[in-house]
Amino acid sequence: MTEVTRTLARWVVNCKPSDVPAEVRQSGVASFLNWMGCAVGGSQHETLDRAIAALKPFSGAGQASILGRKDRFDVMHAALLNGISSHVFDFDDTHLKTIIHPAGPIASAVLALAEYMPISGADLLHAFILGIEVECRIGNAVYPAHYDIGWHITGTAGVFGAAAAVGKLLGLDEQQMVWALGIAGTQSAGFREMFGTMCKSFHPGRAAQNGIASAMLAKQNFTSSNRVLEAPRGFAHVMSVSRNFDEITGKLGEVWEAALNSYKPFACGIVIHPSIDGCIQLRNEHGLKAGDIARIDLRVDPLVLELTGKRTPQTGLEGKFSVYHSCAAAIVYGAAGENEYGDKVVIDPTIITLRDKVTAVAEEDIREDEAYVKVTLNDGRVLEKHVEHAIGSLERPMTRADLIAKFDNLVRDVLPVKQADELRELCWQLESLKDAADVARKAVLS
Amino acid sequence: MTEVTRTLARWVVNCKPSDVPAEVRQSGVASFLNWMGCAVGGSQHETLDRAIAALKPFSGAGQASILGRKDRFDVMHAALLNGISSHVFDFDDTHLKTIIHPAGPIASAVLALAEYMPISGADLLHAFILGIEVECRIGNAVYPAHYDIGWHITGTAGVFGAAAAVGKLLGLDEQQMVWALGIAGTQSAGFREMFGTMCKSFHPGRAAQNGIASAMLAKQNFTSSNRVLEAPRGFAHVMSVSRNFDEITGKLGEVWEAALNSYKPFACGIVIHPSIDGCIQLRNEHGLKAGDIARIDLRVDPLVLELTGKRTPQTGLEGKFSVYHSCAAAIVYGAAGENEYGDKVVIDPTIITLRDKVTAVAEEDIREDEAYVKVTLNDGRVLEKHVEHAIGSLERPMTRADLIAKFDNLVRDVLPVKQADELRELCWQLESLKDAADVARKAVLS
Repeated sequence: MTEVTRTLARWVVNCKPSDVPAEVRQSGVASFLNWMGCAVGGSQHETLDRAIAALKPFSGAGQASILGRKDRFDVMHAALLNGISSHVFDFDDTHLKTIIHPAGPIASAVLALAEYMPISGADLLHAFILGIEVECRIGNAVYPAHYDIGWHITGTAGVFGAAAAVGKLLGLDEQQMVWALGIAGTQSAGFREMFGTMCKSFHPGRAAQNGIASAMLAKQNFTSSNRVLEAPRGFAHVMSVSRNFDEITGKLGEVWEAALNSYKPFACGIVIHPSIDGCIQLRNEHGLKAGDIARIDLRVDPLVLELTGKRTPQTGLEGKFSVYHSCAAAIVYGAAGENEYGDKVVIDPTIITLRDKVTAVAEEDIREDEAYVKVTLNDGRVLEKHVEHAIGSLERPMTRADLIAKFDNLVRDVLPVKQADELRELCWQLESLKDAADVARKAVLS
Repeated sequence: MTEVTRTLARWVVNCKPSDVPAEVRQSGVASFLNWMGCAVGGSQHETLDRAIAALKPFSGAGQASILGRKDRFDVMHAALLNGISSHVFDFDDTHLKTIIHPAGPIASAVLALAEYMPISGADLLHAFILGIEVECRIGNAVYPAHYDIGWHITGTAGVFGAAAAVGKLLGLDEQQMVWALGIAGTQSAGFREMFGTMCKSFHPGRAAQNGIASAMLAKQNFTSSNRVLEAPRGFAHVMSVSRNFDEITGKLGEVWEAALNSYKPFACGIVIHPSIDGCIQLRNEHGLKAGDIARIDLRVDPLVLELTGKRTPQTGLEGKFSVYHSCAAAIVYGAAGENEYGDKVVIDPTIITLRDKVTAVAEEDIREDEAYVKVTLNDGRVLEKHVEHAIGSLERPMTRADLIAKFDNLVRDVLPVKQADELRELCWQLESLKDAADVARKAVLS
């Protein structure tokens, strides 16, 4: 068998920034910006409050920032906490082939490190992109079997990506990088059973934190197996019932997973996005108001009803699992951001009245990013929209303006507008920053 | 299905020290003493040096001791490091039904905690015993399928035990204990692929550290699944191909796994123990010397050759995987402690000459704790010993004197004799200590 782990490690160690195509680097910047928006936006969530209360007494020196807050923690705890924030809204990036949310484990790790040792924006971006490659390639090798068993792949694959990215920044040699991947792999963890609880966002955070520890240990020649990925008792055999190692070592440096990252326009499960998209388009094209509408009929992929079929959500979180609430909010507000999933919005009478007029029918031959939306008005008119590919899909990616609007929406709830704007510009300029830590320092409450 | 997780959590929350039979408490004390000896004995290992070098910059305040050293770390890092020390010689306790080494993840967690908040010796012992129940019962439910897949069960089950023990000391209520087990479970990790590397002892250390974090988070109402053990996407389904939940919830408070713990007399894999035992008995009964011996013939369980068939070990570590070296050392030194697996001992000409006179034959109907040893002397005499149950097995447990000899052997290499003796006595008196942290403070270098 090929030396899978060593081949991957060697590539990470040897890959230079100039080896990465410009469009991949641009994707990396967009992923970083989207991650930052989610992390700052999520930073006031009670999940963070509770984690901070529990862990503060054990933190080391205040080496690194907690984004969107005043607290400072040691590098590893900061990575954990920022990783939690970035995923707590379920609004972060998605690698559609594996449903991995790539940025959380990696960006949380490398940005915290940048406050501890000097790292340029270009080096940080490079390590971030390499981390995404490691994470998503390992994910590709075991998806979907690994996910189907019940593993939360963002945690299980994310720890490898974080270890590789931090290892790159620490200048690990090939053997040390092999060990870093091994130490990471033997901490790979996280059950899908935790979805709907605070542990879901804990997974990318812990992956970031454990990835840093893995690289730091490897730097001190803390040994692990040389074959964590491919050994009969290693990751791909123990944690999956099938695997394809070519997905890890094939076309390294030719095909870039980082360029396949996508961003959610709406703060809910991706299967509802085509329906929301169609509702917003019809609303904007026809100036629709809730009171004009007699009924809304959706034809959707069967997964929509399986995952988001909640008819009478009682809380904002439950609203994210209701295609009915989502479409009602989309018509009323023309958006489906975090605000449209507020606890009060879900029980608003206008929303409830409209929600109860929504019906959805599953059809086998409708794709996951596709939907048919039919709105019947009180005056008898019928408006229809066929969404072939939802906004945010690879076929219809969010534009730069869309990403900016999303970022601003999230960050302006937390930081003053001027600071939010400066932070956004620092993210766009990441590659040219002399000190990547400037970004972290701009993202905290003063 | 029964509420497995909640049933176990409720029992831990409600169990009082007076519910634990005296002989179980005595077993607990013996396990604790044995753990302490291993941790202090292993504390100078380079695995520790490297972990400390890597992690020191990120540690919080010096809240807790690193046993056998001068360093102080925050509670969670101390648990990690002491957990590593206690397993690094592979000399710690064994729950024979599951091959779990129960004490490492749990004792490392609760003793570190005792330096952070006031805990009596009786409370610490109680939490330690409950942690062992949780850990070993969960292990029983999935063994051997879980282990056969490739999971290092001491790490994967240990994190539950550590969370439960720390949760007990933090006074978690039932719901919080359920969450603590959930947070622990979603961090359950560790591959057998890591055996032979520094990551093996990292597993119980990380389990201890993550167990503390789980309980601390749960105390702050950080939520997780309510069904981490039994859910279709929870521990027992995701990490094992078969499971028996009666092993977790059956006869709680009636059958005590802590009373089934065993201790290794020899610093190597347990399968060689009957052969070493037989050699030492013959040596002592007949005053054997290496030069008297023409040949040594062993008849053993097949696992012996499979796991420890190394004919020409080159290092001390390799010696632990050589039944030939082990028997030679047993004849020459009358012992097989850590010293008899030194790098120099393995290449000593006297040892090598005798080692090469050892032959071993596997027989299907010989049990794992059984061996036939036949020594043929140069003068033609033949001496035989049938070891029905090796010393250290449940049928022939180590006596108090054996445990003391083992402890002294390990600890006197690190601490001054007087301090080692005082530490040993504190361990024996654990249950009557007003402040359990006295034990930790007695175990450090001044």
